[in-house]
Amino acid sequence: MNQSSARISIALVHHPVLDRGGETITTAVTSMDVHDFARTCAMYDASPVYFVHPAPGMHAMANDICGYWLEGAGGKRNPGRKQSLENLRLSYSLEEVIEQTGADVWYTSASPPATATTPIEELAGMAGSQLIVFGTGWGLDHHRLPTPNGWLSAIEGIGKVRHLSVRAALAIYLDRLTR
Amino acid sequence: MNQSSARISIALVHHPVLDRGGETITTAVTSMDVHDFARTCAMYDASPVYFVHPAPGMHAMANDICGYWLEGAGGKRNPGRKQSLENLRLSYSLEEVIEQTGADVWYTSASPPATATTPIEELAGMAGSQLIVFGTGWGLDHHRLPTPNGWLSAIEGIGKVRHLSVRAALAIYLDRLTR
Repeated sequence: MNQSSARISIALVHHPVLDRGGETITTAVTSMDVHDFARTCAMYDASPVYFVHPAPGMHAMANDICGYWLEGAGGKRNPGRKQSLENLRLSYSLEEVIEQTGADVWYTSASPPATATTPIEELAGMAGSQLIVFGTGWGLDHHRLPTPNGWLSAIEGIGKVRHLSVRAALAIYLDRLTR
Repeated sequence: MNQSSARISIALVHHPVLDRGGETITTAVTSMDVHDFARTCAMYDASPVYFVHPAPGMHAMANDICGYWLEGAGGKRNPGRKQSLENLRLSYSLEEVIEQTGADVWYTSASPPATATTPIEELAGMAGSQLIVFGTGWGLDHHRLPTPNGWLSAIEGIGKVRHLSVRAALAIYLDRLTR
């Protein structure tokens, strides 16, 4: 396995995202996403992991989840989990994340709205910092988000169903990027 | 992407598995695992997906979760989810699954206890039915389980942390198998 030369960071957007009817919504931060995103990103050396949510209360909840592992009893019992969660950052908007990282921005979707998409493997050879953005709910509400550098090619399975969980999509993209 | 010639089925074992101290435990079935396993397996045409748990009450709970999508309002609103969950099966023991499938059995672990392991890619060329077994908790308590045909090679990341969630591991193995 080759280490990618690119510096990869990840964002999981909870607003603005779409519901099944195409309306703009805000989803809740879930404990499962916090842990799965932090663990997968630590495994593949993608850092930081930004959780984007506009509500301070959700930041407080995420900090509570992480606090148990970062400062409390959890980290003593499970140092690997502590190490994973140390890379998590909370942000109020994707614009804020992009400004902080100065990275090239890549959006993901099961049905990218772009005519040309970029295979994830191509990011490995790119110079500089690359930010890969995932949406919760029914995906990124890209009309209300900054224009990205591009969209990643969708993950195509071999079955009839075409919508992976965002946790599975993250794992597959990062594995493909580093192989 | 090439379709694998192998017939792949999946089992997620909730007993016997290990806790962090190496003791034998039983974990609870979670709604997140039901959905993520069903969706990822449907995407990659791995079927059935067996959830192994010794307690009838956990089978009832899993049936309730699935019932909303298979028979209730969920399936009308989201036919893809219904299609995914149709491949889920509940079983009381791994022995029962092995007997039903007649498949070759492959165990997974972040630290396989075998000296020789099999890369997941090799399963694609194998004739017949292949069952890939995942453990919840701190992994399969293999001393209390049937001897498998072999252990799959662990997923090696490039970071410092080496333990993916079982949901991420499933997604990565199936993606590697079909590429």
